[in-house]
Amino acid sequence: MKYTKILIDQKGRKYIFKNDDLHTKDGMIKADEINKCEVGETVKTHIGTEYTVIYPNITDMLQKAKRGPQAITLKDAALIAGYANLHSGSRVVNSGTGSGILDIFLAGIVYPEKVLTYEIRDDFAKIAGKNFERFGIGNVEIKIKNIYEGIDEENLDAVILDLPEPWLVINFAAEKLKIGGILISFSPSIEQSKKFHGALNMNFLQETFECVLRNWDMKVVRPCSRMIAHTGFITVARLISRNKKLKF
Amino acid sequence: MKYTKILIDQKGRKYIFKNDDLHTKDGMIKADEINKCEVGETVKTHIGTEYTVIYPNITDMLQKAKRGPQAITLKDAALIAGYANLHSGSRVVNSGTGSGILDIFLAGIVYPEKVLTYEIRDDFAKIAGKNFERFGIGNVEIKIKNIYEGIDEENLDAVILDLPEPWLVINFAAEKLKIGGILISFSPSIEQSKKFHGALNMNFLQETFECVLRNWDMKVVRPCSRMIAHTGFITVARLISRNKKLKF
Amino acid sequence: MKYTKILIDQKGRKYIFKNDDLHTKDGMIKADEINKCEVGETVKTHIGTEYTVIYPNITDMLQKAKRGPQAITLKDAALIAGYANLHSGSRVVNSGTGSGILDIFLAGIVYPEKVLTYEIRDDFAKIAGKNFERFGIGNVEIKIKNIYEGIDEENLDAVILDLPEPWLVINFAAEKLKIGGILISFSPSIEQSKKFHGALNMNFLQETFECVLRNWDMKVVRPCSRMIAHTGFITVARLISRNKKLKF
Amino acid sequence: MKYTKILIDQKGRKYIFKNDDLHTKDGMIKADEINKCEVGETVKTHIGTEYTVIYPNITDMLQKAKRGPQAITLKDAALIAGYANLHSGSRVVNSGTGSGILDIFLAGIVYPEKVLTYEIRDDFAKIAGKNFERFGIGNVEIKIKNIYEGIDEENLDAVILDLPEPWLVINFAAEKLKIGGILISFSPSIEQSKKFHGALNMNFLQETFECVLRNWDMKVVRPCSRMIAHTGFITVARLISRNKKLKF
Repeated sequence: MKYTKILIDQKGRKYIFKNDDLHTKDGMIKADEINKCEVGETVKTHIGTEYTVIYPNITDMLQKAKRGPQAITLKDAALIAGYANLHSGSRVVNSGTGSGILDIFLAGIVYPEKVLTYEIRDDFAKIAGKNFERFGIGNVEIKIKNIYEGIDEENLDAVILDLPEPWLVINFAAEKLKIGGILISFSPSIEQSKKFHGALNMNFLQETFECVLRNWDMKVVRPCSRMIAHTGFITVARLISRNKKLKF
Repeated sequence: MKYTKILIDQKGRKYIFKNDDLHTKDGMIKADEINKCEVGETVKTHIGTEYTVIYPNITDMLQKAKRGPQAITLKDAALIAGYANLHSGSRVVNSGTGSGILDIFLAGIVYPEKVLTYEIRDDFAKIAGKNFERFGIGNVEIKIKNIYEGIDEENLDAVILDLPEPWLVINFAAEKLKIGGILISFSPSIEQSKKFHGALNMNFLQETFECVLRNWDMKVVRPCSRMIAHTGFITVARLISRNKKLKF
Repeated sequence: MKYTKILIDQKGRKYIFKNDDLHTKDGMIKADEINKCEVGETVKTHIGTEYTVIYPNITDMLQKAKRGPQAITLKDAALIAGYANLHSGSRVVNSGTGSGILDIFLAGIVYPEKVLTYEIRDDFAKIAGKNFERFGIGNVEIKIKNIYEGIDEENLDAVILDLPEPWLVINFAAEKLKIGGILISFSPSIEQSKKFHGALNMNFLQETFECVLRNWDMKVVRPCSRMIAHTGFITVARLISRNKKLKF
Repeated sequence: MKYTKILIDQKGRKYIFKNDDLHTKDGMIKADEINKCEVGETVKTHIGTEYTVIYPNITDMLQKAKRGPQAITLKDAALIAGYANLHSGSRVVNSGTGSGILDIFLAGIVYPEKVLTYEIRDDFAKIAGKNFERFGIGNVEIKIKNIYEGIDEENLDAVILDLPEPWLVINFAAEKLKIGGILISFSPSIEQSKKFHGALNMNFLQETFECVLRNWDMKVVRPCSRMIAHTGFITVARLISRNKKLKF
């Protein structure tokens, strides 16, 4: 079933409405009452605490989707989509699917075009499929296929890789991307990034960066004490030719 | 006129084709010859250096648009769009327009919906308009209007502010955003962010962060020596109610 | 009593020897046996696990001293001492003492000169005093005195402040520092730093910075996932005159 | 000759007094007049601009010493000395000397003990020697010797390496450090750090970090726009045994 409503309390705690009576930390809300509510309206729990009905946005989906421990953050999803130059209508291949978090983000942007996502593991594909269904994401196509063996689609705007051996995909991407298209690899380790960089050739313009997000506590006007120090290195490679032989 | 082709050399130097003979650092290329080329093909300068024809992507537009000194970076544009939950069809108001760089980015994402962008200065609006024309951005509507005096549109998914006094827009945004919609303010100074934070009330859930991008030199596997240390602080505020009175 | 020996296991777990039988997670070691050991030798617990006897260094002291939640880190202590230009023989006043952690660090550097440390709270002074005794720090003098009311000592090389209202000390520091001497303020909040900056006048050259330390996991060659995002902002002000009236 | 006076203007511009007439951007000051001045007093140029006489501190030395392009920053010198647990009386070997900047810093701290600094290149040793002389640093001993072939001194508190192949020194350091002593390697590239890490064995406890300093512009209360993104990775290894065979 599709999740179309989220209930949120005044502190920002969120509950997905799954068409069942909802048990919050402030008591129960009947499914019937939630069904009668429009987005923007409020309902009360049996002890009288107010909850607001909102529509699930990408932040909610990223938080509430069933996800593995290494699932991508909103920061990285946004940067990848931006640097991959994705917009409504872009043709993008993504691999591996994992729990489908990145695909949910990309699908919103390339709509009505669909995202093609390669995943070798059946169990991951199943989790991702459920996530797409729940959040009403209709424009993702999961392919149970090893991208190290090739890319089927032609004329792509972008290929996005979050894989242990991204260098194995470079030649396929060089063949299937439009000239000017973007190949992005996201790697936790700088050693993988280095190997990926080394395998790119003069057909690509490239840069590698990391991006660190630091939250501020605005009540005392200082950065929060602790932060995520690292998610991954992003290499952006733009195909500018198919036939160069030299290495740089 | 619209720019539909960019010529790029092997080092990544780019030239916009403006339907005139193109003077590169490796000599001249005739307009005729470029017109005959499809994207993906190569042409030679009069001294024989090869250039590839590519289509302009968002990175090119951000680099080649006429822009002021404070124009937004791709990193920030991507993060703002991501945290504002923008996707194909989103209804967004942006202000101020400036040279229109952020609007170019947003327009690609919300297409076929249009971006509404408020700018009080005629001269900026003119520059932005030219940038939209050149890069073929058809879905941005510039309003020469002071957003501190109100927002005309209803039922918005997001309001994005890059203004000296963003707090003056909070009440208008609270009125015109959908419940669950996002108000984002981008400020270079932490003092502005603090004032914006202080003016938000319990109707919004909020967080403030900064995001620093560091490039790596992958030939020697170390961060590049110098970097941009700061662009701005981003405050993301999500409207969860319209009627709360209390401050937190 | 003075702690002169630390026992360390193969994973880096450390135990201070307090002249009593030592109860480790690998069993007990008799005080007698430790007393017979020289630094560099090993002893065995009653179940046969080896521990090495080492001398306590500054890192150990910072870890093992009784300390409050906000006690300074080694990174900040090192930067403060470096930017304050401290070396053997420097005359430095520090305030507030807190648990004395920074004083322990400074005392090692300025020896045989002594550190003068101002603390208004008796209970903190007592804790600090015990820390100095335990680690054999003989060259710190604690003054139970409010530094907001003045500095007694003349001809100082440096004044170091970790206080809620550091600006109240500026005039005293300007009077008691040598020309060319350094006044440093360490503040968690940028608002305090701003107020301190605003109160400094043309008699001081100044800079404010923050310094973020990120650990790497060298087994996988990537930054560790989480880090301390912030400790404090450091303002370094050098007295270059006593009589300037103008503000800059 | 030894530099004992620096002249500083109101903007912080500094001139070393070399016992000659001083030519500033505000005109000339006679050597005689400077010689008559005590530290803390002011002199006027021939057009009447005031300069203050100050004593050279470590910051001045680091700025004014003849130095190579890669000479260590004050931030790194301070962190290295702090993490190496150096204080008055510590016995430290440093290599390579380069222009002697780090040695100047260390010499102030370990005084009256002397710093032993190994340099293989005669020309560098000569530059360093001049720097020590100019700033009156009497407790550094330069050895023209390849540290890859061994360390002469025994019973060391710390060994500090800023070398292309620091791993070649690990066994010598393990032999000549006291148990509990510190071996530090500073490397620009993470690949060198990785190799150093890999060569350390269970006799050392270790950590690797980088530390990034960001200046703030306190007039507008925001970080300065640009910064140094990277200087080097610091690996701190503490010798806790000499005889472990296992690798971890």
